[in-house]
Amino acid sequence: MAGNSFGTLFRFTTWGESHGPAIGVVVDGCPSLLDLAEADIQPWMDKRRPGQSRYTTQRQEPDQVKILSGVFEGRTTGTPISLLIENTDQRSKDYSDIASKFRPGHADYTYWEKYGIRDYRGGGRSSARETACRVAAGAVARKVLGSAIQVRGALVQIGPHKVDRSRWDWAETGNNPFFCPDPVAAGEWAAYLDGIRKNGSSVGAVVEVVASGVPVGLGDPLYDKLDSDLARAMMTINAVKGVEIGNGFAAAELTGEQNADEMRMGPDGRPQFLSNQAGGILGGISSGEDVVVRFAVKPTSSILTPRRTVDTQGHDADILTKGRHDPCVGIRAVPVGEAMMACVLADHLLRRRAERRE
Amino acid sequence: MAGNSFGTLFRFTTWGESHGPAIGVVVDGCPSLLDLAEADIQPWMDKRRPGQSRYTTQRQEPDQVKILSGVFEGRTTGTPISLLIENTDQRSKDYSDIASKFRPGHADYTYWEKYGIRDYRGGGRSSARETACRVAAGAVARKVLGSAIQVRGALVQIGPHKVDRSRWDWAETGNNPFFCPDPVAAGEWAAYLDGIRKNGSSVGAVVEVVASGVPVGLGDPLYDKLDSDLARAMMTINAVKGVEIGNGFAAAELTGEQNADEMRMGPDGRPQFLSNQAGGILGGISSGEDVVVRFAVKPTSSILTPRRTVDTQGHDADILTKGRHDPCVGIRAVPVGEAMMACVLADHLLRRRAERRE
Amino acid sequence: MAGNSFGTLFRFTTWGESHGPAIGVVVDGCPSLLDLAEADIQPWMDKRRPGQSRYTTQRQEPDQVKILSGVFEGRTTGTPISLLIENTDQRSKDYSDIASKFRPGHADYTYWEKYGIRDYRGGGRSSARETACRVAAGAVARKVLGSAIQVRGALVQIGPHKVDRSRWDWAETGNNPFFCPDPVAAGEWAAYLDGIRKNGSSVGAVVEVVASGVPVGLGDPLYDKLDSDLARAMMTINAVKGVEIGNGFAAAELTGEQNADEMRMGPDGRPQFLSNQAGGILGGISSGEDVVVRFAVKPTSSILTPRRTVDTQGHDADILTKGRHDPCVGIRAVPVGEAMMACVLADHLLRRRAERRE
Amino acid sequence: MAGNSFGTLFRFTTWGESHGPAIGVVVDGCPSLLDLAEADIQPWMDKRRPGQSRYTTQRQEPDQVKILSGVFEGRTTGTPISLLIENTDQRSKDYSDIASKFRPGHADYTYWEKYGIRDYRGGGRSSARETACRVAAGAVARKVLGSAIQVRGALVQIGPHKVDRSRWDWAETGNNPFFCPDPVAAGEWAAYLDGIRKNGSSVGAVVEVVASGVPVGLGDPLYDKLDSDLARAMMTINAVKGVEIGNGFAAAELTGEQNADEMRMGPDGRPQFLSNQAGGILGGISSGEDVVVRFAVKPTSSILTPRRTVDTQGHDADILTKGRHDPCVGIRAVPVGEAMMACVLADHLLRRRAERRE
Repeated sequence: MAGNSFGTLFRFTTWGESHGPAIGVVVDGCPSLLDLAEADIQPWMDKRRPGQSRYTTQRQEPDQVKILSGVFEGRTTGTPISLLIENTDQRSKDYSDIASKFRPGHADYTYWEKYGIRDYRGGGRSSARETACRVAAGAVARKVLGSAIQVRGALVQIGPHKVDRSRWDWAETGNNPFFCPDPVAAGEWAAYLDGIRKNGSSVGAVVEVVASGVPVGLGDPLYDKLDSDLARAMMTINAVKGVEIGNGFAAAELTGEQNADEMRMGPDGRPQFLSNQAGGILGGISSGEDVVVRFAVKPTSSILTPRRTVDTQGHDADILTKGRHDPCVGIRAVPVGEAMMACVLADHLLRRRAERRE
Repeated sequence: MAGNSFGTLFRFTTWGESHGPAIGVVVDGCPSLLDLAEADIQPWMDKRRPGQSRYTTQRQEPDQVKILSGVFEGRTTGTPISLLIENTDQRSKDYSDIASKFRPGHADYTYWEKYGIRDYRGGGRSSARETACRVAAGAVARKVLGSAIQVRGALVQIGPHKVDRSRWDWAETGNNPFFCPDPVAAGEWAAYLDGIRKNGSSVGAVVEVVASGVPVGLGDPLYDKLDSDLARAMMTINAVKGVEIGNGFAAAELTGEQNADEMRMGPDGRPQFLSNQAGGILGGISSGEDVVVRFAVKPTSSILTPRRTVDTQGHDADILTKGRHDPCVGIRAVPVGEAMMACVLADHLLRRRAERRE
Repeated sequence: MAGNSFGTLFRFTTWGESHGPAIGVVVDGCPSLLDLAEADIQPWMDKRRPGQSRYTTQRQEPDQVKILSGVFEGRTTGTPISLLIENTDQRSKDYSDIASKFRPGHADYTYWEKYGIRDYRGGGRSSARETACRVAAGAVARKVLGSAIQVRGALVQIGPHKVDRSRWDWAETGNNPFFCPDPVAAGEWAAYLDGIRKNGSSVGAVVEVVASGVPVGLGDPLYDKLDSDLARAMMTINAVKGVEIGNGFAAAELTGEQNADEMRMGPDGRPQFLSNQAGGILGGISSGEDVVVRFAVKPTSSILTPRRTVDTQGHDADILTKGRHDPCVGIRAVPVGEAMMACVLADHLLRRRAERRE
Repeated sequence: MAGNSFGTLFRFTTWGESHGPAIGVVVDGCPSLLDLAEADIQPWMDKRRPGQSRYTTQRQEPDQVKILSGVFEGRTTGTPISLLIENTDQRSKDYSDIASKFRPGHADYTYWEKYGIRDYRGGGRSSARETACRVAAGAVARKVLGSAIQVRGALVQIGPHKVDRSRWDWAETGNNPFFCPDPVAAGEWAAYLDGIRKNGSSVGAVVEVVASGVPVGLGDPLYDKLDSDLARAMMTINAVKGVEIGNGFAAAELTGEQNADEMRMGPDGRPQFLSNQAGGILGGISSGEDVVVRFAVKPTSSILTPRRTVDTQGHDADILTKGRHDPCVGIRAVPVGEAMMACVLADHLLRRRAERRE
């Protein structure tokens, strides 16, 4: 119960269903005196917004964010920032099929068992539409982080196809509809995903989010570690099934000699790591290196092939999910992953400030 | 700051350093009237205890747990359960080397930067010794879960060597020093790990923890999902770099047709899943299927090969970590992963009870 | 930071400033399947609404509550309930005086020092207008409590004038603009308060809130006691300076013989208290008797007599607070106190359910 | 459930029963690099320790505190500080009477109903012995506050007898067994309390705790206000039935003219309050003036006069509480109130640091 909030000092609470009048988020704990306007948030909303290419759901939502509180004369006041996004494209359609049948792989059955009721229209609360609220909160978090800390995400794998890291170029993520940093892969993915889309199928993906400029010392061992908070954060995103930091699962195959990041004093007189296999976190605390997180997104379960299921009355049934869906939900997960990274860092940045000695 | 607690309704707080007089854990929120004695906890402690084979550190600790509060006449009273474990084998040795140099891959540098001070003896607070407290808390959590919910762990990969799942036998996990469910693999691992050990090297591993008998409905979307809490839980364990649920990262390569768990009504008149690729969690809520979590453990950074590092005075240095260490810390992570799973489930089981309608 | 939420399992978060576009509250953790409509909430809003007599501020707000989420087909779904109240009577006036000067007794100076910025219009976030959100949350909490638990409030003292408890009649609280249970006192208060009002002065008050039908066992010793949560709850209400339970401060003057509530078996075979000086709470846990809380409300600091103050530029100044104000804010604190009591009880009722043994 | 912790960034968790082997507290979130030794804590323990005059229980406990973790080479490390106090004077006596009967006014009945079991020996968990842990935590909190913030408590009323504030002298609180700041009153109280004690009776009291040197800006509106946290904190202390800030309940009788604290620029160029009727808190935020809290302690219910009660078998019974008890538990509540004030301030001081702008 009461699980719709995230963070401790920088804390947000989301609300809203896919087909209700609106969705929104309350960001509490944002420091005062930061410049903040709707125009600061909207670009991130637009980045996540569906319907921008043929590879994402054709639902058309302007996702216009409104600031209802917490900002006065263009600056944050330290009071809660309420952000509201109206739902405008709740297409009226016949929901009788999904009202009575559980879509395999979706949260339909578990919500039904847990709550005894569910708003089945468009997935209700479990819809990926909720992630718009996270992106809005993330935009505020970026203000807290300031310009010295940069959070960027990319799609690094789609189905079995991975990027070639030797071609990695962050600038390329803005040049294709996949947030793909490898222009060659982006081209291949387009063809591959067209096939998936035309078959009414779907496919999984892997997202990588990197934060640069993170100071040493963020993270509170043992149970609010920076990496454990990031793992939790990413795993709260719809359809995410795995999270890893730095070398992640590949570290299982390495020896201690291979995996350790050695150190030397840097030219600036500061300790320097000679590699970053740890993904910027040691003992749960940021090391000053790039914080690197990857997460796996399963293929959406909404496909055009009929699947076996049961209905709310306890009968066997078949279901085929028509309607507007993403052939690869991993694409839109990129800005969501960025937002969650920004929120985790903002929270720990404030916590870190509390430690500062006079 | 204040990051040493885990859980909401079933909540534990650990304390203690590797070489202090004792370590301990306070378990708060355990329901009353459960039978609990030290003898209920000790077997789990013994399972994790080092020094039981040549594949774990030779530190010899009896890890005898004492109940200091919360139990009256053999039953829990609903008040906090304080569990204490004395440190007895804090071998006196020369710590001057690790006192002044940061061991690469360890938390030495980040603790130093964060706190400006660290108890360097045996890793202090960041020592894997702290996990004994988790195991003790997990033993209490198992009491909350009762006999209907079973939590079991196994080592499924060591370095590049994986178990053959067709040979999986839970009973085998008690027959070898690796908690390996595949007797053939266990034999191969012994030889492989002997080589690692003799070289003073170390290697990573993957642990799988499975909970059976979990009722439908545990987990609180959106930010206290069962899987996000599990991801956080496992990522708090020392040396863990990745967590996945069900198909995990492999789901990224699948299509929606391949990944969905179809349903049919079962012979007991209850909905039944025809597969469990989701790992027992849909939309953050348990589905009634086995909850399946895997996590990757990096190779310990304590190896006999000298590594480049820096010291607290800002000079380049080399370090070679002598002393008692685990060639594969993933082995002892098995009972720790089980304990964390048990604690997460106990917490959500209590939360779930709060939802029950009159 | 991040202090705008209240409760653990039944948890609400409020947002909004007095003169922004709207205020609102997100109620998280409300169980599913409860009947809930705007019509269930509105009567409580109307009870708190200003402008209903000459004894409260003449600000005219319809305080129309809108449900934006968490309800489907007339029933709660277990997802967050977002409630929004538009601000319609933000009278445009000249705020230059209070923009630059700190009103004594108000939060102007401390907000300024804490945040370096404040929305001075109508008190901004520290306005009593925020309490409308509490009342809305309280209406949801009453649904959780059900009809067996009744929460009622009354004004028991206004300035030096107290009610005569021998004339106490709950029904009378609906017959006068003071929520006064004593009709004779209500008449006297009208005359007294007219004098205060005409002088542009203000006066303090004491509110009593009583919950009947509370089951035994609510409250979690030692730090989430039912009484400590109630004390916190009431002290969060604007202008409250004291809270007491049962005999409260009068208990300091009593002996152990006078203050103890003796027991006997009741005709229903259940233990029965022969008095209720404890106010329904023993050791932090509800005893089954009426839970009785009183709180003192200071006179509002907005008065027509000029007061000495300083301005934001560091100069001495005088200020006289014109505009629409309550001569006795304690009156409108009655439904707010009821709401906070309902929310505390709803939270502990859910927590109590989590303890239920199978 | 899980209610044995207090605080957010500076957070402590207590455990232990009156007649178990030990009691203790884990302090989490204490900043690193503070000097801390057992000798820093012991004097505060001694101040609370019973058996030091004929006016407190004759239980003889050395209350020797041991630091088990979190301190290295005399300084805090930022890791949890575990403090343990052994119980040495659990006099073996016949508990059959209180094992089966509920002592009126005590928590016996409510614990029994809530938990279905209770450690009845000496009150178990609800014993005032637990407050020793608070005092230990408070001693650590004082280290966080530093020397600029001073927290002092005094007994200001015992039964109907109040101190004369014109004779207030903090130094006097160390010269009598009552922590009374008025030497004349102290003399009168001695005679009065001797009579109470000889009759086997008990009496209530009022404690005042004052914090000086508190900076402006502590406290997080609206639900983690400094005053609401203090109200909660004091109400968690055994036997406390009322809390007030500044003028408290007396404010109910005042007009706005009487109650406002006017301001003028001070000689140091800082805004200055001309009075402190608010008790140092405005809008939930510290104003820089002394923070003044008072709380009422009821007479202990352990008296030599037989009282009517019931037993666990559902029969009427009479009970007379023999043994070692305090005629006025309010006396020992003074150092406990100080400790709670120190802990609340330490928590908010750390939270305040998190707000600091670069």
